[in-house]
Amino acid sequence: MVHHGYFRSSSSYRCRIALNLKGVPSDYRPVHLVRDGGQQKTPDYTALNPQQLVPTFEVEGDVLTQSPAILEWIEEIYPDPPLLPPGRLARAKVRAFCAVIGCDIHPLQNLRVLEYLGAEFGAGQDAKQAWCQRWISDGLRAAEALLQGRAQSRFAFGDAPGMAEVYLMPQVFSAKRFGVDMAAFPRLSAVADACAALPAFDAAHPDNQPDAE
Amino acid sequence: MVHHGYFRSSSSYRCRIALNLKGVPSDYRPVHLVRDGGQQKTPDYTALNPQQLVPTFEVEGDVLTQSPAILEWIEEIYPDPPLLPPGRLARAKVRAFCAVIGCDIHPLQNLRVLEYLGAEFGAGQDAKQAWCQRWISDGLRAAEALLQGRAQSRFAFGDAPGMAEVYLMPQVFSAKRFGVDMAAFPRLSAVADACAALPAFDAAHPDNQPDAE
Repeated sequence: MVHHGYFRSSSSYRCRIALNLKGVPSDYRPVHLVRDGGQQKTPDYTALNPQQLVPTFEVEGDVLTQSPAILEWIEEIYPDPPLLPPGRLARAKVRAFCAVIGCDIHPLQNLRVLEYLGAEFGAGQDAKQAWCQRWISDGLRAAEALLQGRAQSRFAFGDAPGMAEVYLMPQVFSAKRFGVDMAAFPRLSAVADACAALPAFDAAHPDNQPDAE
Repeated sequence: MVHHGYFRSSSSYRCRIALNLKGVPSDYRPVHLVRDGGQQKTPDYTALNPQQLVPTFEVEGDVLTQSPAILEWIEEIYPDPPLLPPGRLARAKVRAFCAVIGCDIHPLQNLRVLEYLGAEFGAGQDAKQAWCQRWISDGLRAAEALLQGRAQSRFAFGDAPGMAEVYLMPQVFSAKRFGVDMAAFPRLSAVADACAALPAFDAAHPDNQPDAE
């Protein structure tokens, strides 16, 4: 299994956590999204992933893109330990939590979007940061609300980390990068602290990748 | 099953298609996102969905939000006819197609985002349209690329509509609203034409909802 990723990409970070939690090794190949004008724009990488995004996985002689799809594939092919709970309603609640982050926050803070804000609307660093803070805060408020009444569990939806944490930790990392005060989200912060103590999350952290700067 | 939705919301439209394909009735209750300053902001609706977005489903005495999670729940609880193919890699490819639309396009053209562009960057109607066209075109180009080599099948990934079409049709509807020329995407257009001929898609169309304008 080859994982073409980038140390700071939330999507790549999610896949690293999921694989670490399953104990599944992968051949991690960094694609630097900024250096050389963006290594994702090379003909070789574009042939693999026409969208020029990370991650791209090469598995079973085929190519998989889009982290939500890759994560469901990882869960299906390596079911142990499970990242989704057994009950259908419970699974839907975990997936909703993940979608808040994966759909309502992450796409808005993406590099290509920030570049557009700068180029077309003249947004400077402060305006870009305010933009990111708005969507991250809105989304994390929603995610915190989804955990209401679950304060007794160590992780978001139970006593083991799962898909919720796979999405949460990269988002917390980028919330801090963009200056969002996590103190406003006490339940998410407690879950993030519990995750940070685990080797699977530590090994997946951007700072601990071969392409870290 | 109660479906709180909005005729023009892509996410609500997706759920209507999925339920129609499964032949499952729901009690559709319109939430007008613009009228009265936004009916999603009422205390009653906010209690149901703190994120103030549609759709919200009331099922089994519980509340489900986020269409990607609701659609997986629908697929799990009403497996017949399936919206995802049986093979794991095939499922991952369909889910990747859905994620291109659900993550890389739809969140960027959302009402709250367009409102922010107007309020903070002074974006007028033309600038908002150009913004939407950029992300819709980029995403549809990626979706079209994912269907490369599949021109022999009537629908995106086979001879029956499934999750790919559940995401595609609302996106095509909104592409047209925002003035994107679908002629640039011949494969997607052919799939959309095949869907448009089916009663399940016709009945789910925004124009055919009780809250249509």
